[in-house]
Amino acid sequence: MAEAAEAHEGHAARRGRDARRAARAQRSGVAVPFITRNLPLTEVLSEEAMQIIEHNAETLLEEIGIEFRDYPRALELLRGAGADVRGERVRFPRGLARRLISTVPSQYTQVARNPERSVQIGGKATVFAPNYGSPFVHDLDKGRRYGTIEDFRNFVKLAYMTPYVHHSGGTVCEPVDLPVNKRHLEMVYAHMRLSDKPFMGSVTHPDRALDTVKMAEILFGTDFIQQNTVCTSLINANSPMVWDNTMLGAADVYAQNNQACIITPFILSGAMSPVTVAGTLTQVLAEVLAGVSFLQLVRPGAPAIFGTFVSTLSMQSGAPTFGTPEAALCIYGAAQLARRMKMPFRTGGSLCASKIPDAQAAYESAHTLLPTIHAGANFVLHAAGWMEGGLSASYEKFIMDFDQLGAMHVLAKGVDMSENGQAMEAFHQVEPGGHFLGCAHTQANFETAFYRSSVADNNSVEQWEAEGKQDAPQRANRIWKKMLAEYEAPAIDPGVDEALRDFIERKKASMPDAMY
Amino acid sequence: MAEAAEAHEGHAARRGRDARRAARAQRSGVAVPFITRNLPLTEVLSEEAMQIIEHNAETLLEEIGIEFRDYPRALELLRGAGADVRGERVRFPRGLARRLISTVPSQYTQVARNPERSVQIGGKATVFAPNYGSPFVHDLDKGRRYGTIEDFRNFVKLAYMTPYVHHSGGTVCEPVDLPVNKRHLEMVYAHMRLSDKPFMGSVTHPDRALDTVKMAEILFGTDFIQQNTVCTSLINANSPMVWDNTMLGAADVYAQNNQACIITPFILSGAMSPVTVAGTLTQVLAEVLAGVSFLQLVRPGAPAIFGTFVSTLSMQSGAPTFGTPEAALCIYGAAQLARRMKMPFRTGGSLCASKIPDAQAAYESAHTLLPTIHAGANFVLHAAGWMEGGLSASYEKFIMDFDQLGAMHVLAKGVDMSENGQAMEAFHQVEPGGHFLGCAHTQANFETAFYRSSVADNNSVEQWEAEGKQDAPQRANRIWKKMLAEYEAPAIDPGVDEALRDFIERKKASMPDAMY
Repeated sequence: MAEAAEAHEGHAARRGRDARRAARAQRSGVAVPFITRNLPLTEVLSEEAMQIIEHNAETLLEEIGIEFRDYPRALELLRGAGADVRGERVRFPRGLARRLISTVPSQYTQVARNPERSVQIGGKATVFAPNYGSPFVHDLDKGRRYGTIEDFRNFVKLAYMTPYVHHSGGTVCEPVDLPVNKRHLEMVYAHMRLSDKPFMGSVTHPDRALDTVKMAEILFGTDFIQQNTVCTSLINANSPMVWDNTMLGAADVYAQNNQACIITPFILSGAMSPVTVAGTLTQVLAEVLAGVSFLQLVRPGAPAIFGTFVSTLSMQSGAPTFGTPEAALCIYGAAQLARRMKMPFRTGGSLCASKIPDAQAAYESAHTLLPTIHAGANFVLHAAGWMEGGLSASYEKFIMDFDQLGAMHVLAKGVDMSENGQAMEAFHQVEPGGHFLGCAHTQANFETAFYRSSVADNNSVEQWEAEGKQDAPQRANRIWKKMLAEYEAPAIDPGVDEALRDFIERKKASMPDAMY
Repeated sequence: MAEAAEAHEGHAARRGRDARRAARAQRSGVAVPFITRNLPLTEVLSEEAMQIIEHNAETLLEEIGIEFRDYPRALELLRGAGADVRGERVRFPRGLARRLISTVPSQYTQVARNPERSVQIGGKATVFAPNYGSPFVHDLDKGRRYGTIEDFRNFVKLAYMTPYVHHSGGTVCEPVDLPVNKRHLEMVYAHMRLSDKPFMGSVTHPDRALDTVKMAEILFGTDFIQQNTVCTSLINANSPMVWDNTMLGAADVYAQNNQACIITPFILSGAMSPVTVAGTLTQVLAEVLAGVSFLQLVRPGAPAIFGTFVSTLSMQSGAPTFGTPEAALCIYGAAQLARRMKMPFRTGGSLCASKIPDAQAAYESAHTLLPTIHAGANFVLHAAGWMEGGLSASYEKFIMDFDQLGAMHVLAKGVDMSENGQAMEAFHQVEPGGHFLGCAHTQANFETAFYRSSVADNNSVEQWEAEGKQDAPQRANRIWKKMLAEYEAPAIDPGVDEALRDFIERKKASMPDAMY
């Protein structure tokens, strides 16, 4: 019908077609730097429930306390602030931690080297970052294997190319082929050189955090990073109720340098926290309050995110489970607690336990991602690629998850109630029993109507069979290969690049390889 | 740790173990008759947006009108009530439809032959019913093929056996091996005989609706069904803005006999409605208002559900698409409109376009099901088994979806804020850095903590490989075969069964086979 109309309309129609093509190209080429949500929040805790959980978290901090291990500086700072420190056990008088964290900014901007990619962290903003920390990678061709720096670079390239991931992330996979003590240099460099999106820094040793800061100084300028946040890094608790020296040392470096930390209880409920949602949320709040208190003592006003990684445990086997309803309730509840603390919030992602990108992987990922959006998470790590409980980063799942993230961009916009959105003119164009596809209102909205999946096959079964009966991962396999083949690195000042490489080579030469 | 403790505790431990086994058996055997939601609703429309949509729907009904085709009785009833009827076009003066639908009960009980299976439709209740209307079926062994009465019976058996589906549904697949004009008899009988859950009636001809009513009279007693609703049937609009005689005729029969109808605009947005969410919701409301007005004129107070089947269209190919963000927004918005009309609400399910039970099927299904729950849908058709845009009912997807529905039972309960839920005693049992798995609080909650998936594989990759590297559909394949092998029909009064069979055989003998 559209084609017939075009045949009659001649030049005007061709102009329309060209305009549509241009719009399509633009739409696929230009990313929003982050999602600005226009969707009411889903909340599972009443005000009374939140009061109870906060009261219980304060009780936990006051009566049982939390340990800051092998990091005397934290003990000194906390004692100085009024905490009761005995050995490494720190007890917070009721209200102290809440007072200490009051200096955390409720939102901050993480500046990217391409300023158009800078992201807001907090408020109505949602930022997607890829998978983090997997020692293995997986694809349909070569199966499961240890990750390498080549895999790492590939994932950075893919995250750079998709418009639906806003942040380059951190350890997108472990490059196991590099010595542990030098790995971080090539990882941080890959983010800086192969992408122009914001990135995360190394946290496996305070020295490596400092290397990240120094490389950021080269990229952005020394003065610039003291005034601006250019790095957001992941600081995990040793749940239950322990902060250790590696993480505290890295957080210390970042806070001193005005760089952001995601203070994250890492919890498999039933093992590292009680088996209940309310009990787990209580512990999450207590651990965040303690960790962020330390951070604000290092540098009041240092940017920080209220982090929560919570999933559940199989009570039969002790195996971690993902996409479970209890995990979803924790996501919703923790988001409410973060807002109560007036902090940006990190949780969720596209988590699953499946070993392959099958229906289990997709069900579990969707049952994590949708709550993440509805909860109003601000920073979403593991938004794409996560498989096998995080042990594996999947090339195909990267692509399938990108597609889901694209859909979330549309969902988060909410309902368009403009005159065009109300579409009353369409009803005057189409009689009862008629068809809207050809009407002027539909044609005018053709380019932007409905999210277009890059992975889904919506064809008839006959077409699908004729095209080889491919499943979703097989289609995703073609897509990532095409993307990598078409990748072009963003431009960088050659002097800056040289200075970065020089820093890295000098650093590498200064120490022997080490596998820890 | 648990085993070591048991070894010390001897008899007490064994008693505990036996109790746990009993609890496990009970938990898997006993279903709740329906979900009672304890979760705040997710709403995407502001009060102002709802006012605009309602105003626009009234404008649509007043200015453009809706057609009631080939059913003069509807035109008479509506003219008598004050509508402006010209030909088959019916225009409603502003406010008329809203007034006419005010007699719809805000909730009703559909009685099952096993009274423990009776369901509440409306309020905080959510009822899951299986797939409806697929001409094809699909399984891993035999692939895609036309559905038969054997497939139909298998799906009824599976829905009967799972604790997570509350309603036996209707045309769970099309039994294409039976003559069209006799099919409904065996379908209704299968629901009555092979299950004791509530069911749906035939709507393909008023006579077939009447047969359903007569069979219900045999099963429940003639007087009983005039006082009670024992059947809920699906009445679809011919969107846009047409109600036709087949559906109206069936609805007429059911309403006259106090049986419930789901008045459902069936919309692929972009073809049967405008390409926008607000425009589609406007049309949904207008079509429901008109259809339910007719129903209430047939019998004021006849039970009715505000139905909405909405998905989107690929603007490239014209193919239906499912699990899209726009469809989710329609689900949320329509639920709000139904509550505004004080009617029970039907929408959603586990919809997908994929031809196979792969990751696409799962992503799309989850992105339909979770919004369905968060929106507060009361009756969920297609909750399990739907594949290929409804063309195919999948055995494996039935099982995978059952599992998702089980998870929704837990999610819908919300957060347990009881003293046990708060779990403060657990924190007194486990030191910082300790492990909660062995603590008394965890042991006491062991049986009920965390939803247990029947399909997910959470084992290590090594175990999973040793067990044959099965994907989720392969595991589901084993499960449905085991279920069917173990199926036992619920008991029925032999006299009633004989009367049903007698009715069916006489009815069949009274007419020649027909394929329409």
